[in-house]
Amino acid sequence: MNRDITDLKIGVLGGGQLGRMMLQSAIDFNLDIHMLDPDPKAPCANIAASFTQGDLKDYDTVMAFGKDKDLITIEIEAVNTDALKALQADGKKVFPQPEIIEMIQDKRKQKTFYKANRIPTADFILTENKAEVLANKDFLPAVNKLGKGGYDGQGVQILKNEADLEKAFEAPSLLEKLIDFKKELSVIVARNESGEVKCFPLVEMAFHPTANLVEFLFAPAEVSKTIEEKAYQLATDVINQLDMVGLLAVEMFLTQDDEVLVNEIAPRTHNSGHQTIEANITSQFEQHLRAILNLPLGATDLIRPAAMVNVLGEDGYTGNAQYEGLTELMELSGVHLHLYGKKITKPFRKMGHITLTDSDVTSLKQKALKVKEILKVKA
Amino acid sequence: MNRDITDLKIGVLGGGQLGRMMLQSAIDFNLDIHMLDPDPKAPCANIAASFTQGDLKDYDTVMAFGKDKDLITIEIEAVNTDALKALQADGKKVFPQPEIIEMIQDKRKQKTFYKANRIPTADFILTENKAEVLANKDFLPAVNKLGKGGYDGQGVQILKNEADLEKAFEAPSLLEKLIDFKKELSVIVARNESGEVKCFPLVEMAFHPTANLVEFLFAPAEVSKTIEEKAYQLATDVINQLDMVGLLAVEMFLTQDDEVLVNEIAPRTHNSGHQTIEANITSQFEQHLRAILNLPLGATDLIRPAAMVNVLGEDGYTGNAQYEGLTELMELSGVHLHLYGKKITKPFRKMGHITLTDSDVTSLKQKALKVKEILKVKA
Repeated sequence: MNRDITDLKIGVLGGGQLGRMMLQSAIDFNLDIHMLDPDPKAPCANIAASFTQGDLKDYDTVMAFGKDKDLITIEIEAVNTDALKALQADGKKVFPQPEIIEMIQDKRKQKTFYKANRIPTADFILTENKAEVLANKDFLPAVNKLGKGGYDGQGVQILKNEADLEKAFEAPSLLEKLIDFKKELSVIVARNESGEVKCFPLVEMAFHPTANLVEFLFAPAEVSKTIEEKAYQLATDVINQLDMVGLLAVEMFLTQDDEVLVNEIAPRTHNSGHQTIEANITSQFEQHLRAILNLPLGATDLIRPAAMVNVLGEDGYTGNAQYEGLTELMELSGVHLHLYGKKITKPFRKMGHITLTDSDVTSLKQKALKVKEILKVKA
Repeated sequence: MNRDITDLKIGVLGGGQLGRMMLQSAIDFNLDIHMLDPDPKAPCANIAASFTQGDLKDYDTVMAFGKDKDLITIEIEAVNTDALKALQADGKKVFPQPEIIEMIQDKRKQKTFYKANRIPTADFILTENKAEVLANKDFLPAVNKLGKGGYDGQGVQILKNEADLEKAFEAPSLLEKLIDFKKELSVIVARNESGEVKCFPLVEMAFHPTANLVEFLFAPAEVSKTIEEKAYQLATDVINQLDMVGLLAVEMFLTQDDEVLVNEIAPRTHNSGHQTIEANITSQFEQHLRAILNLPLGATDLIRPAAMVNVLGEDGYTGNAQYEGLTELMELSGVHLHLYGKKITKPFRKMGHITLTDSDVTSLKQKALKVKEILKVKA
């Protein structure tokens, strides 16, 4: 980019916690960042250079928001990509590119892309309606995923046996072989306009048993060097084959026989990279900015082992958020609290996260469990 | 503090770079922070919950700003302390306490405090006017410091010999024995309302030969364990004797015979603690917030050796800042750029800083010199 980065007017679609942490990082580069989000009380509402309330999926809203920007990016993929394409055609930089966002929005297209590009992924069948799922009962146990509109555990369900088939989605969806995995892994990879690519170190995630959200994350992942290399190669292949500019989170399964399969990708900063703020030389938020500004990518080395715990709204409480256990939490060494500025808590709502760093992995894991017991978000 | 920290309305006097980095940290705690600064384009102007333009030294302005706040703090010590005392009397929390700010504003009172409390410091004489300085020529070589109003190298001058006496300040000032020091050191120490005290690891500074600003900083300081312990004890003694709540930067001289003398103190976050953002478990900005909110203080351990380089406006350039060498800078590993959001550059104006982290101290020092050559702020 020839212009001084501080002279660019940057627009971000979405003003949630990912945008909030992006803004915290962007302050260091004097960037001029403006946000669009439907929620007038979104986490970014008070800290962006300007905040516009509006529907991210509405063509006219996105066009109006983008028209005076030089560079547009996203912090959520549920956005109007037709408007982004038109803005790109008008000569604006749009990263990640609208065509890639559009492909990723549809899990059916995502899976088809993996297959076409020989990216290892769980076997699948595309289904147009419930009847087509029922016709494929031999494929069970499987995961039934809505093609479009799923988010944070919505639109995804396991069909173990014939009795479960009743729940099958009556909409374009896909049926994916249920993988008996050893671990869930994630690599966040960045690519700038010049084509430089860098992976963040592999992490492993543990999901909440019912809410289908990341509950714990540990960095580094405890896997062999061979598996690690396989994961980096896979993430690098995906971002290169997409020819994408920006940050891409690649969630993977490690199967029982040590295969690494791509599960899902997200073309943005991701929950599985929050620990990079404290634990890595460069954070995923800074790396995203470097990538879209075509700056050299930052070193991604992990400095200290880290764990990440999502702070979720306690089940059974809705209303003005109260944080129980804050003082006790702060007494622990190496605890980094990140609250997302959300006034209202709901069951399992992501209200913040905690990063733990420690030189010793065992005490890190104990601390992660303890932290979860200490901090409660009630109303 | 019994109320939820996220319910407090916090006011900060000053909206410069220290306030800006405090805000970046405060976002993580959902804090509601409002700033007052005379410059409508101050570094915090666009990112605080609200920004008021006004004179920090004006009683009515500070009173009006403080009246709806629950907790008031500072990021610069040149503020109206009478107003802060009145606000404190009205039941508001004011940290650091107004009496301490007032004492520190006057270098004569600072020195008198050290003497009264047996804090080792360079010998000095209080002088009311130029004639009194002239009468003490036997005291040369000495440093002549204005009692009040000095800042960033202003109001401080070295009087080496009789010929220099012409420059002596015609105002209440002090004459301090010129110390032939080996190193300049700094300890940042925090104390919360409960009386918990924690020191950040000792750092050493190298000053710019003409601009009297910190040019390089290295952490950890290369001194013996004995000297290090002496420095922590001294910083702890000072903050305890002040009974201060908040963060205190204690700048020290290490003399040729390994004495540690207090040079000056600042009751706030400080240029000698910027590297804590990346290099320590807790940053000085978070620590300041923890201290004034009476939260447990964070662990201060240094994780990786670090250097800090101030980014100063290039001599000879005044006007709209342009950053030369940004791309080249970003190619170096472990480089963390912090720009302060100042549109206008002036010779030696603090426009930002760069923190470097590395596992190897030798390469760190080389990189610090290199970085200074690469990034230039021109107009």
